[in-house]
Amino acid sequence: MWGIELQKDGEMPLKRQLYMALSERILNGAIKAGEALPSTRGLAQQLKISRNTVVEAYDMLAVEGFILNRPGSVARVAGGLVLEPLTPPAESSREVRPAPVPLLADFRTGHPDLRLFPRYLWQQLSKRTLQEMPYDLLGYTGPQGLPRLREEIAAHLLRSKGLYAAPEDIFITAGATHALNLVTDLLYEEGKPICMEDPCNRGMLQILLNKGYAVNPIPVDKLGVQTEYLQGQPSCAVYVTPSHQFPLGGVLPASRRTALIRYARKKNCYIVEDDYDSEFRYYGDPVAPLYAMDPERVIHIGTFSKVLVPALRIGYVILPGKLHQRWRQLRTHSDVQNPPFEQAVLAEFLHRRKFDRHIRTATKQYGERRQTLLASLKAHFGDIWHAWGDASGLHLAVQFPGMEFDEAFAKNCINHGVRVTPVEYHCIHKGKHADKLLFGYGHMEPEDIEKGVALFHEIVMRFQRE
Amino acid sequence: MWGIELQKDGEMPLKRQLYMALSERILNGAIKAGEALPSTRGLAQQLKISRNTVVEAYDMLAVEGFILNRPGSVARVAGGLVLEPLTPPAESSREVRPAPVPLLADFRTGHPDLRLFPRYLWQQLSKRTLQEMPYDLLGYTGPQGLPRLREEIAAHLLRSKGLYAAPEDIFITAGATHALNLVTDLLYEEGKPICMEDPCNRGMLQILLNKGYAVNPIPVDKLGVQTEYLQGQPSCAVYVTPSHQFPLGGVLPASRRTALIRYARKKNCYIVEDDYDSEFRYYGDPVAPLYAMDPERVIHIGTFSKVLVPALRIGYVILPGKLHQRWRQLRTHSDVQNPPFEQAVLAEFLHRRKFDRHIRTATKQYGERRQTLLASLKAHFGDIWHAWGDASGLHLAVQFPGMEFDEAFAKNCINHGVRVTPVEYHCIHKGKHADKLLFGYGHMEPEDIEKGVALFHEIVMRFQRE
Repeated sequence: MWGIELQKDGEMPLKRQLYMALSERILNGAIKAGEALPSTRGLAQQLKISRNTVVEAYDMLAVEGFILNRPGSVARVAGGLVLEPLTPPAESSREVRPAPVPLLADFRTGHPDLRLFPRYLWQQLSKRTLQEMPYDLLGYTGPQGLPRLREEIAAHLLRSKGLYAAPEDIFITAGATHALNLVTDLLYEEGKPICMEDPCNRGMLQILLNKGYAVNPIPVDKLGVQTEYLQGQPSCAVYVTPSHQFPLGGVLPASRRTALIRYARKKNCYIVEDDYDSEFRYYGDPVAPLYAMDPERVIHIGTFSKVLVPALRIGYVILPGKLHQRWRQLRTHSDVQNPPFEQAVLAEFLHRRKFDRHIRTATKQYGERRQTLLASLKAHFGDIWHAWGDASGLHLAVQFPGMEFDEAFAKNCINHGVRVTPVEYHCIHKGKHADKLLFGYGHMEPEDIEKGVALFHEIVMRFQRE
Repeated sequence: MWGIELQKDGEMPLKRQLYMALSERILNGAIKAGEALPSTRGLAQQLKISRNTVVEAYDMLAVEGFILNRPGSVARVAGGLVLEPLTPPAESSREVRPAPVPLLADFRTGHPDLRLFPRYLWQQLSKRTLQEMPYDLLGYTGPQGLPRLREEIAAHLLRSKGLYAAPEDIFITAGATHALNLVTDLLYEEGKPICMEDPCNRGMLQILLNKGYAVNPIPVDKLGVQTEYLQGQPSCAVYVTPSHQFPLGGVLPASRRTALIRYARKKNCYIVEDDYDSEFRYYGDPVAPLYAMDPERVIHIGTFSKVLVPALRIGYVILPGKLHQRWRQLRTHSDVQNPPFEQAVLAEFLHRRKFDRHIRTATKQYGERRQTLLASLKAHFGDIWHAWGDASGLHLAVQFPGMEFDEAFAKNCINHGVRVTPVEYHCIHKGKHADKLLFGYGHMEPEDIEKGVALFHEIVMRFQRE
């Protein structure tokens, strides 16, 4: 009948197979409007299935209006259901990735060492949390995040950076990118640009461009953003990385910090402080956040992605009171809230001071890797280079005066098995930092760093000869 | 000296306390620009702390540019750092919630029963997943979601709804709200409105209003959206809930489904199908998704929040190939990705068919609760009411012809310990559904449903007398 063939040992129930076979034929016009369907008994015999299966399939068709099925009369096909056949899909953007060249040394930035994650401990805390979690926490727990986690973050910030933040001013996010995303929605004013360090993280820049922001680049030197270029510029916010400028590494001096605060007060705008990896400082203590200077003008963004692992997807933002209500509304109507379960585990991890311990362990490891990188560069390149920025974070910005690194160079390196990032990649105005490269080292074993620098040296030598 | 008092048994290290005391006094002008700081030895003696602590505090001040500290010369305060004192924060929007009235019966909509969540099983799967998860999954795993979860969702959709979707067309999200949020970013075209069922979920409507969309309301009757009102209307998309209209409950008939597809093809726009709770159907099988009719025109949104628990924060969207690349870009620059860990656990949960089983168990329970609700309404209100919509989902829309339910009525109910939602709450054009109320029942025990309806009956009687 109508060429229907059912898969009797398939995954899909027979009634659904029959329903699909019939509805497809109605939609493509093979079974016409007004046509009578065979009796359930008749069709069951023909297809060698139980009559009940046919009854159920007819019910499905009737519920969805494919057939009119009144008790006592024959089932008939409804009218007006024929659809033109599907046009073949045009210009698909389904991903076809080229097979990646295997990298021998990947100095990509912003990646912590995933093997340092205290997996066993996390597993134990997870188990206990799942066991003890009250049922309420399985439902909707609100856009601000679990109170317990916010209290633990406040305590940690006070312990580690001397930052006073009230738990009620802390809002949990799904990481720093997500935080900036919502912050810029919050601050958007038609026609007002946002000031951004140049160079700055290209991903963060893309967030603002996606939202239709006009971006006003403010130059950066060894110390960080050059606040003298801000004067007179109107904006709804200034995005800065004062503890460890990304990518050049400067620690913003107090004079420029106060200039930022004065600017924000004068222009009645906000400073967005992105504190993405200042936990790792290799000589001395973490730098104090700008937030402390004026909690009503500075929006502070922090994240656990770099310090623990990206997989956590937990960050936070400390917000001036004025912005709380709008934030709650925006978060509720964008992605509702963070999953409560991993918030609860992280709160326990902080409470037991395991996070402080993790930072100490990781800082020691990353500091050694940084030393290895510096020593390897010295061994291969002598004194023709110098490092920029503060001894902190997960990457090093290196200047090779007189050289030029562009996208073609970076591609050439990849083809030879080494990934390095030209600072130019992160520049809004191109051409000012062409002699600088970024080496991410946090995620690499010392021997891989050494091999990588040796290989990189070969590539540079060959490149210069050509 | 300068009134500095250190807490010797405090949580914060002494060096940071000293750093903070000094930087605060520099910022407020108590210690003037150019002033010499005491020698480290002298200050250490005065404060009765070790000299090393003072050295470290001075280092912190020097790194951040508060003081100029050259070896061999006295440390001096840098210039230009004085900030006006903080203005007291104005018009804070910090949340001050009134103490909620305890509810005796909360018929809120959209809440599954959290106690049905198979907690112990989930805990076991979590434990194993954390143990076996490769290290890669702790890092960045991409904006589309874990391939394994996408394969399991595809298999489940085929099994349960006869829906063919390729895993490469499925994109994991942080729930349905998040999915709609990104979809509407994707489809936004300056000046083009979006068509939306009226009534529709007020939270979903708010997403579109937040984005600056003009919303074109399309009326809904017992069967769902009235597609005849679409004709001629320009739009970038039509948002519909064809499997179980929210809130009125209709199953959209095939004739209107084909009308939607024809409209989308003619106007070169998309249909956004929100399939929020069609897994629970109490007579017969789940309704087939609209997606199957034209996978290049329909964007299908599904979620695990209602079927499992909101805490999971996992949903998905099935996207036409044309939109894949833009989606990846948008997701990467909004919240990057879902946490991989719970994706892996959910994949295993689906793989073992525990999800199918959970749906069966929950459907049985919810179906009984629905029966209790219907019986209680009958017992108290006789025949003066009737139910709207299909026997599915987690809530019931009830019409009381001749009555009128507004916000004041809903508040009055809350004050008497019962929450019900007037359909008007979800209406864009007000006044057409004033005689209808929503009763969410999925999360309630049968005895609470009975008590709640009795109480509600009392309130209505009293309200009518006044």
